[in-house]
Amino acid sequence: MARLLQSISSPALLHQMSAQELKALAGEIREEIIKTVHRTGGHLGASLGAVEIIIAIHSVINSPEDKVIFDVGHQAYAHKLLTGRLDNFACLRQADGLSGFPRRSESPHDPFGTGHAGTSISAALGYCLARDALGQKYKVVTVTGDGALTAGMAFEALNHAGELQTDLVVVLNDNEMSIAPNVGGLSDYLTRIRTDPTYHRAKDDLERLISRIPAVGGQMLRVVERLRDTVRSLVVPGAFFEELGFSYYGPIDGHNIPLLQRVLREAFERGGPVLIHAYTQKGRGYAPAESDPGHLHALAPERANGVHRPTFSQLFGETLEQLAAQDQRIVAITAAMPEGTGLSGFGHRFPDRLIDVGIAEQHAVTLAAGLACGGMKPVVAIYSSFMQRAYDQIVHDVALQNLPVVLCLDRAGLVGEDGPTHHGAFDISYLRHIPNLVVMAPRDGAHLRHMLYTALEHDGPAAIRYGREEVQDVGARHQLPAKIPIGRGELLRRGGDIAILAVGTMVAVAMAAAELLEERGLSVAVADARFIKPLDEALLGELARSVRCLVTVEDNCVAGGFGSAVLETLARLSLQLPVRCLGIPDRFIEHGPLEWLREKWGLHPAAVAEAAYGLWAGSRQGWPQIIETGSHN
Amino acid sequence: MARLLQSISSPALLHQMSAQELKALAGEIREEIIKTVHRTGGHLGASLGAVEIIIAIHSVINSPEDKVIFDVGHQAYAHKLLTGRLDNFACLRQADGLSGFPRRSESPHDPFGTGHAGTSISAALGYCLARDALGQKYKVVTVTGDGALTAGMAFEALNHAGELQTDLVVVLNDNEMSIAPNVGGLSDYLTRIRTDPTYHRAKDDLERLISRIPAVGGQMLRVVERLRDTVRSLVVPGAFFEELGFSYYGPIDGHNIPLLQRVLREAFERGGPVLIHAYTQKGRGYAPAESDPGHLHALAPERANGVHRPTFSQLFGETLEQLAAQDQRIVAITAAMPEGTGLSGFGHRFPDRLIDVGIAEQHAVTLAAGLACGGMKPVVAIYSSFMQRAYDQIVHDVALQNLPVVLCLDRAGLVGEDGPTHHGAFDISYLRHIPNLVVMAPRDGAHLRHMLYTALEHDGPAAIRYGREEVQDVGARHQLPAKIPIGRGELLRRGGDIAILAVGTMVAVAMAAAELLEERGLSVAVADARFIKPLDEALLGELARSVRCLVTVEDNCVAGGFGSAVLETLARLSLQLPVRCLGIPDRFIEHGPLEWLREKWGLHPAAVAEAAYGLWAGSRQGWPQIIETGSHN
Repeated sequence: MARLLQSISSPALLHQMSAQELKALAGEIREEIIKTVHRTGGHLGASLGAVEIIIAIHSVINSPEDKVIFDVGHQAYAHKLLTGRLDNFACLRQADGLSGFPRRSESPHDPFGTGHAGTSISAALGYCLARDALGQKYKVVTVTGDGALTAGMAFEALNHAGELQTDLVVVLNDNEMSIAPNVGGLSDYLTRIRTDPTYHRAKDDLERLISRIPAVGGQMLRVVERLRDTVRSLVVPGAFFEELGFSYYGPIDGHNIPLLQRVLREAFERGGPVLIHAYTQKGRGYAPAESDPGHLHALAPERANGVHRPTFSQLFGETLEQLAAQDQRIVAITAAMPEGTGLSGFGHRFPDRLIDVGIAEQHAVTLAAGLACGGMKPVVAIYSSFMQRAYDQIVHDVALQNLPVVLCLDRAGLVGEDGPTHHGAFDISYLRHIPNLVVMAPRDGAHLRHMLYTALEHDGPAAIRYGREEVQDVGARHQLPAKIPIGRGELLRRGGDIAILAVGTMVAVAMAAAELLEERGLSVAVADARFIKPLDEALLGELARSVRCLVTVEDNCVAGGFGSAVLETLARLSLQLPVRCLGIPDRFIEHGPLEWLREKWGLHPAAVAEAAYGLWAGSRQGWPQIIETGSHN
Repeated sequence: MARLLQSISSPALLHQMSAQELKALAGEIREEIIKTVHRTGGHLGASLGAVEIIIAIHSVINSPEDKVIFDVGHQAYAHKLLTGRLDNFACLRQADGLSGFPRRSESPHDPFGTGHAGTSISAALGYCLARDALGQKYKVVTVTGDGALTAGMAFEALNHAGELQTDLVVVLNDNEMSIAPNVGGLSDYLTRIRTDPTYHRAKDDLERLISRIPAVGGQMLRVVERLRDTVRSLVVPGAFFEELGFSYYGPIDGHNIPLLQRVLREAFERGGPVLIHAYTQKGRGYAPAESDPGHLHALAPERANGVHRPTFSQLFGETLEQLAAQDQRIVAITAAMPEGTGLSGFGHRFPDRLIDVGIAEQHAVTLAAGLACGGMKPVVAIYSSFMQRAYDQIVHDVALQNLPVVLCLDRAGLVGEDGPTHHGAFDISYLRHIPNLVVMAPRDGAHLRHMLYTALEHDGPAAIRYGREEVQDVGARHQLPAKIPIGRGELLRRGGDIAILAVGTMVAVAMAAAELLEERGLSVAVADARFIKPLDEALLGELARSVRCLVTVEDNCVAGGFGSAVLETLARLSLQLPVRCLGIPDRFIEHGPLEWLREKWGLHPAAVAEAAYGLWAGSRQGWPQIIETGSHN
């Protein structure tokens, strides 16, 4: 079926193919992507929209000597298919299979791994400067979505590249969408360029105007002369980019391969920083994705039908809607993820109170700080790994000023198929050392609801982190949630041999582990800390005094995480007992099904039970009981 | 002397003052700033340049009902003097005195605390949205430097504000400098606007051109008509901002108060997002600052003369220069801080190998990742608190790809007078949980040199953090440094009662504390961990087995910091003994002299000795010796 595609043993073969063959190849690639992604899940819309751009690029460059870097990277499936990964494409996003994003370790044709928006131009510029310094000659091209351009760091890179004037081609893949419809003045501007024929034709018109002005006299002529160059450079659609120092080509049809080839060749010939503005259609060639590009941004893998419980995200959105109906001051902020964070319903009901800032996490958090100063109750919902972008703003603009901003970190812990760029493996570690900040993790839906309410009622900053999974217990969804005392954990099970202290969805794992240990004759206490910060010192002290050893469990990295907070507290309380901290190990975790990853990395009941048993057995050898040391401090 | 200034009990009094009086007031303010900053240290140039802008703003708004937010904030001294802080101005940046930056806690006239660049527009937009949602009516204005505009988050905010069209006035205080001369296409563009008369007059000229075109016929007229609006909006100097959705006024002389007043009034009247482009002279009114604005960006307080040892920053720059002479691939990257990070000499010697990206930390780090991929050896030198901006890029672009990028975090630990926005209190905590990353801290100059060399030789990412202080031992400055085995600490002093494990400049404090403890009859071991990650487990195990109790010392927050890493390691090694972790407490630390702050927060020998003694005394009560528990894991 994919006759042409199968013959592409190297992307250089595209150089010899005719326009008709390349068009047919595009069709085959689309078929392959649609077929595979339906089975494996993945980013359908963006990848379908970029097929012709990718074909055109490979038909005029020589990868891997020349470098092509895909921003975000989920548009790069066609690139994978053209660079020797057709045979493995069936295992896209599967355990031990191809990544859903470009990865340096996966292919020499992936010069830079991507996954978070806006990084490609910086990385590409780095290549350019290295090339120039080492006297090399290769081409560097990025494919950057219009959504990624709303990320501040993309602007930082454009600004820098515009000054340096090294050879760099940026293909702006403008599908008028990032993930949700785009926001921002720049997006409006791009749309104007694409759709307003006046704007579009302004340059030609002006040229004609100037050339046809009758010679009315010396002064007028000088005015015209002086204006000519200035005006010419301004009245092009891409003045925004020209002003940053880029040459601008476009807008052009991003599905027209011969046109793309011609413009790419021109751009490489021209030299310096060039931006090619290509407009494309997200989901191109697949009717359901074309008609609803937002919804089909990412496809979940096929799975057995059944009754599904709501996810944390859904319950978050539902609860916020409920609370917002009671309090006019509640406003939700998201960074291009209204659907993923569960805020669609909220947005429909309160369109004026859902602020989507685009892919601009830094701005989102400081905007929230400003809103809080102005008397609102802002709730910022961003995925855990993307909130990393706003770390400085959380410290500097929110926590330092002790402002009542609620941070909701969705997709905390391991996320599964999206892999290492998307796992929320670090949030407890990057949040819990920030002064003034309360950090919570709900073990079930009822707690998510209570914690959201608690955070909104708290007069200071608070963060709630939760995973992508379905919730165990949704709570009394139609009642208003209740406040939880800040810093109060909950003892769920008593026992005298071992205590397991867990947070978030690891509490259920701890409870199951306790059952397994009980079968081995041990008496096991289990507590849900609920608050990572402030930690429930009374509960921790009580547990430490009543058992032989303590195990902590979290789906965050162990380093600097929840278990580490427990150790700090025990040391401060001068309590010593054997402790084992379980969590994500000190390495980047690959992609794969969530349950498979948890099995692999020990975040499941049997592994927790085994670790606890080992610790308990070891502690019997040398350690009769908890020893509490007094301290003069 | 400051007769007018003393009469300003409220900024509203400026409304009634004549142009002449306001001009005289500007003179008095300048005198006051120059006088005070010479004594206290502080940011002279930026504050002198913004005097007229601040006077003009207060003369047309009503603070604190109306909000004025200063980006970065070190330009705001005139604002402090006009809002009731004249009497306290003498204690600017002194212990318990005025902050060098706007602070919400300091005055109702400071609606948002600033300190890091690029935050003001986001914060101001938050105020605007809150105002609109709550049906209030106040004005919101920011004063943002051209340097701050290179920060990506400023662009994110401009882009968002341009779309929302709420009433917001951004005064761009363009002094062609951030701290170092500005970089970037946008900066070139602003300079073009300021200096190119063709460009500047283009709008007027075009208006005249269009109005004077003779009626040459129907078709031509239609072309003119169609062009009129489009061209008019494009051929203004501020097309860049207009395209983002802002109305642009300027460029205007930012030292002309009546002009500023008129334009501000027009801007408030017009409504929507407005950018006023005012050009100013950094250091205006003070000859030494006018002639060398970069050098006088910040003034150190006066101090006794004497022989000064080099700072860590100076030694870093000198050593990098030495190493770069041997290796063509070494390239240095800074974010608007070539002088502060000690790279001036390097830049003079290797102008092509010093890349100043402007205030753009995110881009700096990902650019370095790209450079590393391209075969270079990038060294990124950024202050600890500003590196917070690049946390996601360190995780996602550097560490995940295990790239050999060297991160040098200057101004780590407490920095003194610049206060909480500038203390490097968190870097160990935000770095040490990142997989693949090596994290080091030198105790003296010799170690800084060795560590820099070690990092450059390491095939993976490495970070070095050091404070702003002078170094104790500069090492053999003219010899090449040597490699330190990764993860190897150093035992500096043997002892059997207490072990003190420290990092960085706290090692000297630990040594002095050991002396004090010895005077009390105790035998104290001291070790320099050198590597926070990977930690020297062998050394730690040896210490833990040979003493009664262990104290850790760091000038980073205790939460998630170095001590916390020690606790994690002891738990994993199944070693229990009383441990006390000393460091920066879980709160934001105010400004003040460095030594005063260290005294206050226990980071000095007597406090460390006292804490260690207390721990030791307590451990005698219940704990005869170290107990090592076996483990089946």
